[in-house]
Amino acid sequence: MIGVDWGTSSFRAFRLGGDGGILDRRASSRGILHIEPGGFADALNAEIGGWLADGESRVLLCGMVGSRQGWQEAPYLPCPAGAPDLAGALADVAFAGARLKLVPGLSDADAAGIPEVMRGEETQLIGALPAIGRDGVACLPGSHCKWARIADGRIAGYTTHLTGEAYAALRGHTILGRMMRDGPTELAAFDQGAARSADAGGLLHHLFGVRTLGLFGRLAEIEAASYLSGLLIGHEVRAALAGSPDAEIHLIGAPKLCALYARAVGAAGCRAIRQDADAAARGLALIGGLAQWN
Amino acid sequence: MIGVDWGTSSFRAFRLGGDGGILDRRASSRGILHIEPGGFADALNAEIGGWLADGESRVLLCGMVGSRQGWQEAPYLPCPAGAPDLAGALADVAFAGARLKLVPGLSDADAAGIPEVMRGEETQLIGALPAIGRDGVACLPGSHCKWARIADGRIAGYTTHLTGEAYAALRGHTILGRMMRDGPTELAAFDQGAARSADAGGLLHHLFGVRTLGLFGRLAEIEAASYLSGLLIGHEVRAALAGSPDAEIHLIGAPKLCALYARAVGAAGCRAIRQDADAAARGLALIGGLAQWN
Repeated sequence: MIGVDWGTSSFRAFRLGGDGGILDRRASSRGILHIEPGGFADALNAEIGGWLADGESRVLLCGMVGSRQGWQEAPYLPCPAGAPDLAGALADVAFAGARLKLVPGLSDADAAGIPEVMRGEETQLIGALPAIGRDGVACLPGSHCKWARIADGRIAGYTTHLTGEAYAALRGHTILGRMMRDGPTELAAFDQGAARSADAGGLLHHLFGVRTLGLFGRLAEIEAASYLSGLLIGHEVRAALAGSPDAEIHLIGAPKLCALYARAVGAAGCRAIRQDADAAARGLALIGGLAQWN
Repeated sequence: MIGVDWGTSSFRAFRLGGDGGILDRRASSRGILHIEPGGFADALNAEIGGWLADGESRVLLCGMVGSRQGWQEAPYLPCPAGAPDLAGALADVAFAGARLKLVPGLSDADAAGIPEVMRGEETQLIGALPAIGRDGVACLPGSHCKWARIADGRIAGYTTHLTGEAYAALRGHTILGRMMRDGPTELAAFDQGAARSADAGGLLHHLFGVRTLGLFGRLAEIEAASYLSGLLIGHEVRAALAGSPDAEIHLIGAPKLCALYARAVGAAGCRAIRQDADAAARGLALIGGLAQWN
């Protein structure tokens, strides 16, 4: 079968063997934001038409392609949910070239009853379950970072943090960005920001310190963006871990960002375990293997 | 004498009587960002030349006009500082039309040693001291909101929160702003956001809730900006009050913004006391009255 992780700004496809192994892969920037209404079938053919011509007849999609802005809306499934629950709730999509199904997103609510939504991360979590085990905590860094609780081999619940988007807005559109120069992540400055997140005063106070440390020559322009990143990720990690008895956090996602989260998790006194970046492919294979394709 | 509060984006001048009363006032958008280098004397003459022609010969300036980006840099004075300390540290500026002096800004450091800076707010605080008394806590809302501790009739120390600028960046440059419509503040939504700030999960998690409450129809487009404002101000107020034994907070600044802060202070269990908006004029009169003008 073919598995596709089709998000807002990127497209990733995997040709999967009967054992779930990755036989071939494609990636492009053809995210759903770049597809005209009605243009999804053509875009899919342009990406994986060769594999379909080769005889593949089953395609499983996950990600924002199943949202209202995507090809077709697949209603959210509530937590807790495991691979069989997701496989039993796939949405069929009309497509001339193959049988095509969508993985639904997952909804949840936090302790205060505020709703949560994810699309795509549920599939990565399912793919990481064999490594995580039946119980644990996983973090999927990104613009809207997810922290999920795994219990009894299912996704029991999760919370979202707007960290990545807040970082971009604060860096690009406040006075803080004026004293920053682009460059690779300065790890010492990142760690300094992550450590600062443990201090009293709150995030909004700590943000002003990015400016004053620069004004007084204690933070160089080449370090300031890394310090801001450490500050925000540090605040997220400490809030997510508050009251959690778990000493191990499984990180799933892009290696560079996961490496930074691992530092912040370590600074907060927990151990980070990094999962490989193909969790989406494995999740698509697992869910697809449980689905009814007739 | 003439007192001038000359900030980044606005210019306010007061003609002051011998008793410190306001005889006349002017306000314009001629902030320091709009003044060409070398153009400060002409700008000042354009604003208050009439009063100088009338015989006024002493002008006291406060605000960002005393920064490196202003007319002339006046070095920061460290906390604690009261009116006599500020009056003893005024910087003289060469000006053909009158004797001209700058109030220095105040520097401080928080418990972790991170530096703090203010320019202009020290003068408002001095102006509010007669109403606050010898000891208390004052909050000056704004882009960079200040919380100051008054002890023994002096400004003992303070912390800054980037709340106003963070609000503008998050509203204008994240997905949250896409579900907001302009309009007057919706007080019920503001209060809902301020109450949310007391929940577990941290600010970055609470921010994502602005989106999901909208997605699930629980927050209207006309309410969402007010909810975001309540969330941020609520987080600031709770962090600033943490561990403080003070039950009364004096608010100094623009009446509309102070009214919102008063709601958030009340929601956090403290009593807000609003000071009138002419604290800067009173502070300029008090400091100017203690200065050596010969």
